[in-house]
Amino acid sequence: MAMKKKVVVLVSGGLDSSTCLARARGAGHECIALSFDYGQRHGAELQAARRVVAALGASEHRIMRLGLEQIGGSALTDAEVAVPETPVEGIPVTYVPARNTIFLSLALALAEAKGASEIYIGVNAVDYSGYPDCRPTFIEAFQKVADLGTRTGSVGDGVVIQAPLIAMSKAEIIAEGNRLGVDFSLTVSCYQADDEGRACGRCDACRLRKAGFVAAGCVDPTRYQKGFLG
Amino acid sequence: MAMKKKVVVLVSGGLDSSTCLARARGAGHECIALSFDYGQRHGAELQAARRVVAALGASEHRIMRLGLEQIGGSALTDAEVAVPETPVEGIPVTYVPARNTIFLSLALALAEAKGASEIYIGVNAVDYSGYPDCRPTFIEAFQKVADLGTRTGSVGDGVVIQAPLIAMSKAEIIAEGNRLGVDFSLTVSCYQADDEGRACGRCDACRLRKAGFVAAGCVDPTRYQKGFLG
Repeated sequence: MAMKKKVVVLVSGGLDSSTCLARARGAGHECIALSFDYGQRHGAELQAARRVVAALGASEHRIMRLGLEQIGGSALTDAEVAVPETPVEGIPVTYVPARNTIFLSLALALAEAKGASEIYIGVNAVDYSGYPDCRPTFIEAFQKVADLGTRTGSVGDGVVIQAPLIAMSKAEIIAEGNRLGVDFSLTVSCYQADDEGRACGRCDACRLRKAGFVAAGCVDPTRYQKGFLG
Repeated sequence: MAMKKKVVVLVSGGLDSSTCLARARGAGHECIALSFDYGQRHGAELQAARRVVAALGASEHRIMRLGLEQIGGSALTDAEVAVPETPVEGIPVTYVPARNTIFLSLALALAEAKGASEIYIGVNAVDYSGYPDCRPTFIEAFQKVADLGTRTGSVGDGVVIQAPLIAMSKAEIIAEGNRLGVDFSLTVSCYQADDEGRACGRCDACRLRKAGFVAAGCVDPTRYQKGFLG
């Protein structure tokens, strides 16, 4: 029998991180869920994170306030920058400067303070929006930072970064989530969801999600805002 | 003539980061000073940071709130853990989990959002407290994260981490600060300074600072708390 591990799971309330939490739970780990109230325009995300954690279970759910809107530089944290509703070339304006570096840093601190041995992050590099901090090379680089920059890491017993979805397509993630019992109706992916968590259907996150459900061949439980015709 | 660069400088209010800001100013850079109100027990540090930035000059001084006391795991962020007053072996309890990783991550985000090309951090690995996140290998590893995990880095134009003091002893840093006109009476190093910024004289930070001034052969302007005899 595998030993029960204590792990920190980054949970945004979207379908990737929810599947990630389900993986960690499915492996029998004690999960500390970590979400960030970072000034994101889609506050419905945090409500979704709460629902997902309640449904899948965790020993605790930390929601850390982080004023990234003071930093800006992204359509997700700056109300003045519009979320694009048509596909773009390259890295989109929804890129939040160094977001995964910041999230992993705080997860690393929490893991070390709590004696957790792993961090789960739901990044994927196949059907994604082109964000540089979702790629395998980035995760490997951050692993090195965790190994060198912490007390536990410096004695060879560092926190391990787990990115179990990194090589999966969106359809594969959805299939995996279904297998693990994730209720995707609780999740919100849309960058500009309304207060009830209803999606716009037009942003990049909505497009990737929709295509994923189509490719996975299963029912898409996403609730759309009035006026969106699919 | 060197081009004027825009840089982010991490300023804690201690003597290392103050010398670091003086270096960046001395190089003629436009400096965005960044400090963190991270729940540290030594609030006098932030007052010192404000004084130092006002004296040395910066285009702006950002003070970001960061609730590391919610994470704990250190004598500096957990009021229940006492600051040691005698030298210890290995990494001391004043180590804050992943602190420099967190600080550099947020500096990286700010640099990217503001179009700054460098981050100055005053870490040094000679006369230091044994913190793993002050070593050259850690800085190199974080540089890689910055190169791979950001928009600018992914196109080969990433933010460069500058750690100009990393190979200096405390005495050398003090000599450099004096040369650059740093008023060390404005700085606070003590982990348990009182509200007026007076040092305890007994903690690790005080011991390193005191020994540094002795070795540098110059006047130590540190103000000590009543009852401390030096």
